[in-house]
Amino acid sequence: MKALVFDGTPRVEELPAPEPGPGEALVRVLSAGVCNTDLEICRGYMDFHGVLGHEFVGLVEKTPTRALEGKRVVGEINCVCHRCEWCRMEMFHHCAARTVLGIAGRPGAFAEYLTLPEENLHPVPGNIRDDVAVFTEPLAAAFRILEQVPVGPADRVVVLGDGKLGQLCAQVLATRTRNLVCAGRHRWKLDLLAARGVAVCLEDEPVAPGADLVVEATGRPEGLARALELVRPEGTLVLKSTVAETIPLASVLAVVNEIRIVGSRCGPFRPALAALAAGEVEVRPMITEAYDLAEGVTALARARDPGVMKVLLRM
Amino acid sequence: MKALVFDGTPRVEELPAPEPGPGEALVRVLSAGVCNTDLEICRGYMDFHGVLGHEFVGLVEKTPTRALEGKRVVGEINCVCHRCEWCRMEMFHHCAARTVLGIAGRPGAFAEYLTLPEENLHPVPGNIRDDVAVFTEPLAAAFRILEQVPVGPADRVVVLGDGKLGQLCAQVLATRTRNLVCAGRHRWKLDLLAARGVAVCLEDEPVAPGADLVVEATGRPEGLARALELVRPEGTLVLKSTVAETIPLASVLAVVNEIRIVGSRCGPFRPALAALAAGEVEVRPMITEAYDLAEGVTALARARDPGVMKVLLRM
Repeated sequence: MKALVFDGTPRVEELPAPEPGPGEALVRVLSAGVCNTDLEICRGYMDFHGVLGHEFVGLVEKTPTRALEGKRVVGEINCVCHRCEWCRMEMFHHCAARTVLGIAGRPGAFAEYLTLPEENLHPVPGNIRDDVAVFTEPLAAAFRILEQVPVGPADRVVVLGDGKLGQLCAQVLATRTRNLVCAGRHRWKLDLLAARGVAVCLEDEPVAPGADLVVEATGRPEGLARALELVRPEGTLVLKSTVAETIPLASVLAVVNEIRIVGSRCGPFRPALAALAAGEVEVRPMITEAYDLAEGVTALARARDPGVMKVLLRM
Repeated sequence: MKALVFDGTPRVEELPAPEPGPGEALVRVLSAGVCNTDLEICRGYMDFHGVLGHEFVGLVEKTPTRALEGKRVVGEINCVCHRCEWCRMEMFHHCAARTVLGIAGRPGAFAEYLTLPEENLHPVPGNIRDDVAVFTEPLAAAFRILEQVPVGPADRVVVLGDGKLGQLCAQVLATRTRNLVCAGRHRWKLDLLAARGVAVCLEDEPVAPGADLVVEATGRPEGLARALELVRPEGTLVLKSTVAETIPLASVLAVVNEIRIVGSRCGPFRPALAALAAGEVEVRPMITEAYDLAEGVTALARARDPGVMKVLLRM
């Protein structure tokens, strides 16, 4: 099969199709999305070498129980042991022995086939198109915020960052409060959100401080300082950016104002699929381009372009 | 009256006794404690100029209601407006218009007299000696953690820092869990805690990672990185140190492990007084020396000595 592999440089290679292990399903990938994490991996993040990619939709070819065979699915990316200390505490995403699709210890989704534990798969409702279903994984990460922080209809929320993750977070949080603004650097990206009725502003426009919740999704080290300025005393600051370098924290501000800073990673697939099926979150305007898997190297390069949002690969 | 004033350098001066404003009490100070914050102020923190000091016990000479006259009291240091957005949310310590005793906009406790709003004062139970009562304010700051983070008997807690605040935090948290260790740099300081039955270790001794709660009270920028290593996924890291400089945050670790970092400042006086009265927290071994107010400059210099814990001033 064809696959987009990173081994120091990204390249498209012919590989044998993967063999599902015990409890695993074989999935034929239909479409996959390039995430910033893939680009970070190509800069050395996670020391990952192998098939890239973790956002996908596919068709189940083989499963142990056959329940899902022939079904169109998306898949949770953390493959867990169910035995370690964190799994026993039901913090499966933090499994100490986990492998992560296309990120750690497991070949990814930029390939014609992938394997995942059957328990990781979720059938996709029929009215969600393939290109839209690819957003389930990052949208689940946005829904993770609602598991971590109570958000009420009167809460004032600021989302920093108008990239893919920022936009998904803004749309999800806007389902809970109307008192939300997304601040970004790109008028054209903000216009996509504004078209969904979400309030937006440019990063250098003034935003009133005192937000109950600030979501840092800029992907830049300086985002944290800005977020600390905007959050109210005893307010919550959700960190979504994975920035490889250490970032400066004005800890006096965090201590004096007693801010809660909450790291936030992977989230629940069910509400993400439900929101896509109901049209509560709109992702199609974020799709800039789609490439054949054979053009994967070009697709990765294109995804780095600041004028681009989501780049898809079709298998 | 005599007072220890900072105006670029610390000096003892003769000043007129303060006049209580509306709602305020006049308090004759009996004893006061030197806090690291006082030393930080002498390095420029908070841009404060004026009478230093915020940990004290005193006798009420005059109050508006006379209810407390003649009583021995300790006092909360944040003087608040009851009208701003944060006061209306009952986050009084975060009052946007607050003055803070000896820290911001209000003369402090290293003087023969101070004024504070009557509402800030708490009578001191008779069995708490003056030198012990001085610890009420920092002990309240340690109790703040219990308001912010649930701590159960099976929770594993690590306190980083064997200084005054670290020891108070360790003693308070040890009332909730037996699964606690305090890691510090000074054997003699740790021995004081060990004598109270609290488990201790030197900073360079191994501590098992995976703590439910880590309290960062080292007062040093590198404490945060160590705390992030020790806290479990979805665990809580309480920031107690006010370090003037920005400190490096390995945000990837915080995001991937979904850590909650909680800034923590001033706390409730009632449980602090109750714990001192009941002998649940022992502070006397932490008192290294006491000076007359006239020797205040020497006392400040002495408090900087790494071989010293609490330095008191007696008026």
